Amino acid sequence: MKNTLMRWKLPAVCLIWQLAMIILFGIFIRYNEESDAHWIKTKIALNISSDLENDFYFRYPSFQDVHVMVFVGFGFLMTFLKRYGFGSVGFNFLIASFSIQWALLMQGWFHSLDYNDGKIKIGVESLINADFCAASVLISFGAVLGKVSPVQLLIMALFEVTLYAVNEYIILSLLGARDAGGSMVIHMFGGYFGLAVTRILYRANLDQTKNGSVYHSDLFSMIGTLYLWMFWPSFNSAISNHGDGQHRGAINTYASLAACVLTTIAISSITEKKGKINMVHVQNATLAGGVAMGTAAEMMLSVYGALIVGSLTGVISTLGFIYLSPLMEKYLLIQDTCGIHNLHAMPGLIGAIVGAITAAAATEEVYTKEGLIAAFAFEGRFEGRIPTIQGGYQAAAFCVTLAISLVGGIIVGFILKLPFWGDPSDENCYDDEVYWEVPEDEPLYSVQSTNTPALKASSNGDSQ
Amino acid sequence: MKNTLMRWKLPAVCLIWQLAMIILFGIFIRYNEESDAHWIKTKIALNISSDLENDFYFRYPSFQDVHVMVFVGFGFLMTFLKRYGFGSVGFNFLIASFSIQWALLMQGWFHSLDYNDGKIKIGVESLINADFCAASVLISFGAVLGKVSPVQLLIMALFEVTLYAVNEYIILSLLGARDAGGSMVIHMFGGYFGLAVTRILYRANLDQTKNGSVYHSDLFSMIGTLYLWMFWPSFNSAISNHGDGQHRGAINTYASLAACVLTTIAISSITEKKGKINMVHVQNATLAGGVAMGTAAEMMLSVYGALIVGSLTGVISTLGFIYLSPLMEKYLLIQDTCGIHNLHAMPGLIGAIVGAITAAAATEEVYTKEGLIAAFAFEGRFEGRIPTIQGGYQAAAFCVTLAISLVGGIIVGFILKLPFWGDPSDENCYDDEVYWEVPEDEPLYSVQSTNTPALKASSNGDSQ
Amino acid sequence: MKNTLMRWKLPAVCLIWQLAMIILFGIFIRYNEESDAHWIKTKIALNISSDLENDFYFRYPSFQDVHVMVFVGFGFLMTFLKRYGFGSVGFNFLIASFSIQWALLMQGWFHSLDYNDGKIKIGVESLINADFCAASVLISFGAVLGKVSPVQLLIMALFEVTLYAVNEYIILSLLGARDAGGSMVIHMFGGYFGLAVTRILYRANLDQTKNGSVYHSDLFSMIGTLYLWMFWPSFNSAISNHGDGQHRGAINTYASLAACVLTTIAISSITEKKGKINMVHVQNATLAGGVAMGTAAEMMLSVYGALIVGSLTGVISTLGFIYLSPLMEKYLLIQDTCGIHNLHAMPGLIGAIVGAITAAAATEEVYTKEGLIAAFAFEGRFEGRIPTIQGGYQAAAFCVTLAISLVGGIIVGFILKLPFWGDPSDENCYDDEVYWEVPEDEPLYSVQSTNTPALKASSNGDSQ
Repeated sequence: MKNTLMRWKLPAVCLIWQLAMIILFGIFIRYNEESDAHWIKTKIALNISSDLENDFYFRYPSFQDVHVMVFVGFGFLMTFLKRYGFGSVGFNFLIASFSIQWALLMQGWFHSLDYNDGKIKIGVESLINADFCAASVLISFGAVLGKVSPVQLLIMALFEVTLYAVNEYIILSLLGARDAGGSMVIHMFGGYFGLAVTRILYRANLDQTKNGSVYHSDLFSMIGTLYLWMFWPSFNSAISNHGDGQHRGAINTYASLAACVLTTIAISSITEKKGKINMVHVQNATLAGGVAMGTAAEMMLSVYGALIVGSLTGVISTLGFIYLSPLMEKYLLIQDTCGIHNLHAMPGLIGAIVGAITAAAATEEVYTKEGLIAAFAFEGRFEGRIPTIQGGYQAAAFCVTLAISLVGGIIVGFILKLPFWGDPSDENCYDDEVYWEVPEDEPLYSVQSTNTPALKASSNGDSQ
Repeated sequence: MKNTLMRWKLPAVCLIWQLAMIILFGIFIRYNEESDAHWIKTKIALNISSDLENDFYFRYPSFQDVHVMVFVGFGFLMTFLKRYGFGSVGFNFLIASFSIQWALLMQGWFHSLDYNDGKIKIGVESLINADFCAASVLISFGAVLGKVSPVQLLIMALFEVTLYAVNEYIILSLLGARDAGGSMVIHMFGGYFGLAVTRILYRANLDQTKNGSVYHSDLFSMIGTLYLWMFWPSFNSAISNHGDGQHRGAINTYASLAACVLTTIAISSITEKKGKINMVHVQNATLAGGVAMGTAAEMMLSVYGALIVGSLTGVISTLGFIYLSPLMEKYLLIQDTCGIHNLHAMPGLIGAIVGAITAAAATEEVYTKEGLIAAFAFEGRFEGRIPTIQGGYQAAAFCVTLAISLVGGIIVGFILKLPFWGDPSDENCYDDEVYWEVPEDEPLYSVQSTNTPALKASSNGDSQ
Repeated sequence: MKNTLMRWKLPAVCLIWQLAMIILFGIFIRYNEESDAHWIKTKIALNISSDLENDFYFRYPSFQDVHVMVFVGFGFLMTFLKRYGFGSVGFNFLIASFSIQWALLMQGWFHSLDYNDGKIKIGVESLINADFCAASVLISFGAVLGKVSPVQLLIMALFEVTLYAVNEYIILSLLGARDAGGSMVIHMFGGYFGLAVTRILYRANLDQTKNGSVYHSDLFSMIGTLYLWMFWPSFNSAISNHGDGQHRGAINTYASLAACVLTTIAISSITEKKGKINMVHVQNATLAGGVAMGTAAEMMLSVYGALIVGSLTGVISTLGFIYLSPLMEKYLLIQDTCGIHNLHAMPGLIGAIVGAITAAAATEEVYTKEGLIAAFAFEGRFEGRIPTIQGGYQAAAFCVTLAISLVGGIIVGFILKLPFWGDPSDENCYDDEVYWEVPEDEPLYSVQSTNTPALKASSNGDSQ
């Protein structure tokens, strides 16, 4: 049996990293002009008449929706495992809480460093971007779910957030690609990174006994699914341009997701010989339509375009769960617990392509001259760029993301393979008992009440 | 045994209808001026100084609340059944996803067709209205829950959305009735439609064995209840006038719902001989106060008026569950799984009456002259209308809704009675096994760990 | 056995109090100028150009987040008990619904009485404050969870809301303390009040058998935890100043909470000999970072300051659960079901101290001259007050809160100790059977289907 004792390792990593966060925040992080008390003067200087022009009011509702997606959405989506609910929702909570802090720093250094004073200035958009980065880490978590220790997860998060920020800087700031909902930045990156990690951590003798659901764990999982599904329009529009950009991003994502549900259920039913629907598909593939809208949602894709993308992605994602995942496990030795290849990597890839095509096809007639400049930020260093060129840069961004995520995932996978991180043995995977104090489950309610003496004996230990 | 095989029927319906949506959206649906890239020019043309004037910022937070009510609220509310959790939340997901697409078209043709170019222009308010229409279908779903196939549900949704749009057009556009939170349009319509359908689908030998809850299914259901309850102020104010209209709609609904909880629990306790509270009432009747505010929430009803309406509706709804539902099943042959008569139909009817009286009692003193015109839209074809007349039109709208929903429900009921839609046999009602792949439930957690060998044998099949 | 029959008591209390609410609302409560139809004239009078300046748009999204915290957050957090889920979520629903109504009146009399007409004018901020007051009652509920009758809870709520409003008036209006997120007003008050009540209600022979969780009840509880955690930034910023105040309040709380998660898990793991994480800590102590930000969130604490506060509070709260709670039960005879001392009272106390220090350290350099006046409301009767003096008043507010909550709690405790409120006997504590109709739990899903005849016999009673 492996040594899975977390008593010193996990507290040490948590406390040292939290201490590092405090020191680095102390040195670098400051309020930006909209969250600083100087706002009262900034308004006068910028001739702003109303507090409503503070970005807080444009983005805070979307931020909270994204926040729910990250903590409840991803956390509960993964509770489908019959014996890994605590690990799913609890480790999700832990690594997201670390990732958002580290992301504020990493993204800050790359994107919002004030060169006058060397400080990172943060506001509500920084919080959204930090949550986005955490989402990418949680996607990767889905691939290794149940097979790693919390220390491994924290180490993965440390490296993944770092590489995420590098990739984001290259494709958004250097290449000038657009990716407001993160088909590339978030989903492709987190997806391929996680697949690479789980490939390196391949377990030939993995005990799959506990890799399955029970009736109520599937319902808990649907809580996650629905919150992801409902709030995805906010996810894809949270950092889009004020006004029509956010508005259109929400509409396109809404349409794509609705279409995706119908095609997912169609394919799920048609591929099972009794025509029954599979909850795994409903829990996961219905969301692929949101992933595939990540790049193009804010663009003038047209609503029926969104329906087409959502419909096709639902089909592809569901087929991926049915046919591709088993093949990937058998031939590529990729054990992908949550099927992130089908929910994030492939749909993210589709989203990147849709985005590149939509960008390349943009015209002044559709966007207006000023609208085109605003939509694609053909300003500053990208002044004068034209849509077809933009399409090329979108494709370049796609390639960069693929390369960095795969190479990064492989390297991090080898780091996580080191023997002292406390990962579970093959027969203890997908089991909360390894890292959590688990209450003894007694026979349920009414049976108990007829049988109190036995009960008293067995449950003394778990009182709160 | 009936043939419940869905393998070809369900995929065919899903795929054909989704294809039809794509084609019709391609022909008809376009972004409106606030979600189109031309917004940058529209702002100049309309002399709008801030992107915040985009309707998105007035309505998007309310939209997301409504969206949660439709997918999590209705979906989880119905998971109270011990063996029908997948069907409740899964079919809810499916038919709502279809309904919102079809509603965008149907409501668009009636309400937002641009006669210059023959296109439907959509924005955030269209999404809210589509969600409202889906809510109406889900209400009807509650009546037939557990007794129909997904194909029947999709067919019901197709017709119900169509009739909903017709009814909405007649009462709002032709009669000029006000119904921002849909006491008539949504709740009465969905309620009486569903009751008519379930009457036609009456099963004399229905096996009620599985028509009941277990401890944890009742808790899942409370998730639905609470989200409906909490976000109902958003529901009733989502499409009200900007400013005081939305503000007042939220306050009135908040007050009505709070009162409704106390009277529901009072009546639940007083009618049981041991004085115990019944979860069915807490899950359902507590919401009736929101339904009954659907028409009058945006009006100057006064907060204590809202408390009175909420209090009375809680009493009536709870009494309905206790006394009326069994009578309706026995004498009217109406098998109403979720008790939608008590939660939607009756409270919607009360809401319609309250709305008519409140409208008729409106005065310029209370509203101001301009406020009265704005509140009741006494503009355009309704210019010069006075409150007492408005009250009459509200009453007319009530009658129209009742007629269309009942007649429509009867006709659709007969369509759904056709023998080839794959509905379950009497003994398989309320059972997920018919349409879903259901994981085998093993003894729970700690028992399992002492008993691993047996486990391995039984759970190989359901790994993900 | 005690007489726990609720049949006449509970309905009587609910109905009489609801009737009283209607009458008092009729006499006192009116719409304020932003929710009244006269808004259309108010806008002109105040030279407001846009409906967006209506406070509704500044605060409604935060209000809804707070609303979710009160009803789903607190309600589900307490469902960790294996047999008390109905009571947790159901009584939470009941007493919160009463408390918000009574709070609108009590807070209205103290804070928003219009002396011209003797009416209380309410708007969205009133709803937030009413929810805040309900939160305080629910905190106290956590201490007595499982050991009292619903009638006792309603009586506790009546007195606690009253005292809450008195304390709030003294410390905010008379002393001029700042406490936007309620470290003192909400958490210290509710915490110490509840601890005093449960001390007086001490049960020497309490049967702790059912005071524990099962696997799925711990997952239900995590729903509550996560919604509280995610929306706490809204809680602490909901009634802050428009603009930078709300913006900064959200950022500080976000940071503090993230840090708190890491230190909670570190301490949870290090204190258990096998290094396993305890769900009790994850469910509760992770939230302490939000409580401790209640006073200082809107101040220029700096983000790293928030991280320090969150980190330390996570450590202290977790240690409290492990070491302090057993000692308090043993030596102080305080039986604190949910550990509110560790989650609310102590962190609230820390928050009060942090707030006092942060206020005392405020400078014009950091805030600007106008910003300082705005941030601390050095206007009207507090014109000319300086930060160091403000720090003193914050400390005074702390003492007042402690005194009122403890004395009030003791008195209310003795009232609740009267023998006719229907509290459960020692062996029936933590058991839903006493006050709720509980469905019989049969063996779960697939076992059932092989065993239908037995089933039919046993479940006829609980059909809906």
